[in-house]
Amino acid sequence: MKILVSNDDGIDSIGIYHLVQTLKEIGEVTVVAPLKEQSAVGHAITMQVPLRVIKFYKNNEFFGYAVDGTPADCVKMGIRNIMNESPDIVVSGINHGSNTATNVIYSGTVSAAREAAIMDVPSIAISVTSHGAKHFSFAAEIAKKFSLLINEKGLQKGTMLNINVPDRLETDIQGIMLTQQGKSKWDDIYEKRQDPYGRDYYWLTGNLVDCDNDPKMDQYAVRNNFVSVSPIHFDLTDYETYNKMKGWKIEELFNKK
Amino acid sequence: MKILVSNDDGIDSIGIYHLVQTLKEIGEVTVVAPLKEQSAVGHAITMQVPLRVIKFYKNNEFFGYAVDGTPADCVKMGIRNIMNESPDIVVSGINHGSNTATNVIYSGTVSAAREAAIMDVPSIAISVTSHGAKHFSFAAEIAKKFSLLINEKGLQKGTMLNINVPDRLETDIQGIMLTQQGKSKWDDIYEKRQDPYGRDYYWLTGNLVDCDNDPKMDQYAVRNNFVSVSPIHFDLTDYETYNKMKGWKIEELFNKK
Repeated sequence: MKILVSNDDGIDSIGIYHLVQTLKEIGEVTVVAPLKEQSAVGHAITMQVPLRVIKFYKNNEFFGYAVDGTPADCVKMGIRNIMNESPDIVVSGINHGSNTATNVIYSGTVSAAREAAIMDVPSIAISVTSHGAKHFSFAAEIAKKFSLLINEKGLQKGTMLNINVPDRLETDIQGIMLTQQGKSKWDDIYEKRQDPYGRDYYWLTGNLVDCDNDPKMDQYAVRNNFVSVSPIHFDLTDYETYNKMKGWKIEELFNKK
Repeated sequence: MKILVSNDDGIDSIGIYHLVQTLKEIGEVTVVAPLKEQSAVGHAITMQVPLRVIKFYKNNEFFGYAVDGTPADCVKMGIRNIMNESPDIVVSGINHGSNTATNVIYSGTVSAAREAAIMDVPSIAISVTSHGAKHFSFAAEIAKKFSLLINEKGLQKGTMLNINVPDRLETDIQGIMLTQQGKSKWDDIYEKRQDPYGRDYYWLTGNLVDCDNDPKMDQYAVRNNFVSVSPIHFDLTDYETYNKMKGWKIEELFNKK
């Protein structure tokens, strides 16, 4: 199995190191990850400036390729230029922090995996649900199990799995749940401060308002100490509204002259 | 009608100027837009560094607020801190370039509108389908018509309209079509170059492989000189795969100890 690994916390983070060590047990791993932390960059890609690729060493051994761009850049660069063939799977993570509910939209970790899905390569995004995440070994095992499962079963083109693992001891994990993207959102606050020169600046902060009480939802699963596994795609069409809008007769808003 | 306008080409672009002038005919317009171009930043938000807000003047008149961040930052900042109440609608654009098919994922213009949708404010992303776009007046009129229509009919919470207008004279426009997000994708190429010091760098380039021959698709519509209107939401769950995966019995991959 040829495996491309990326992340959004940067090539030097603890999460990606655990992931790589574990995935090496089942395949040939190529690492292409951001040089610097790229949390919350969403599906940004770099077009206005060029990218550089640097060989990155860890403990005096070659670990992988660092790209001075976004997670989506890393996956594009990894598949198009660094690997000599398309990988069998792309695994992104292990993210330090939850990627459930609305976080899926902002997440660089998910975007790396989604970029692979756009390129018709099956993929997984894997996260541990706490910014000060400690329990990476179990999450790495989960990533390995699902990599093998996808290799066996296949995934529909354009689809990826978004996996969130509670930051708990394995003995505290209640099980694995198949889930959907939850509805919980951030109550954003911009904290207003003044710099030493008297000018205002704003830091984004806030809290996730956890409103997912439906047991099908990713946020419900992790809150109850289950591993959450959601299939995600990149078709954003709202089919319900599409069908409703057929009655709006928007064609009539413009008459060809 | 209270209207918040943003974009991804930057507050000083031609597209946003046309949009603002036209929307002023139907409401009170507040502009909060990026200080610099933010194309292809996707749904990035700024968390690692603080944001600054600058009053921006055009032709010696106050035009709006420039934020040194992303389109999604601008909408959050506009709604949370700059306006004293939630706007009735957010309109993002007019983008210089097409936001059909896979571009929807990468687009800063769409992400500004989607951020509004996440915040339960109805929204529109509007683009003219050419990077050297010339025909903004007609697109601005379309944005106005759909703003009025949404004000009248309402939009489901969490849904926005993604509108693409062919860069043509109004007399060449064939009509308006209700569409879905197309499947066309980029065939990426990283052009390898050398800097004056002999080091390699890579520029992202490539072509959109237009494979949308289904008349329901956004890319088909604009190619045939129709205005494309797609309802977009932010639930990325792939329900087809979700139902299929019920048969995978993933629960059995982990036994509680």
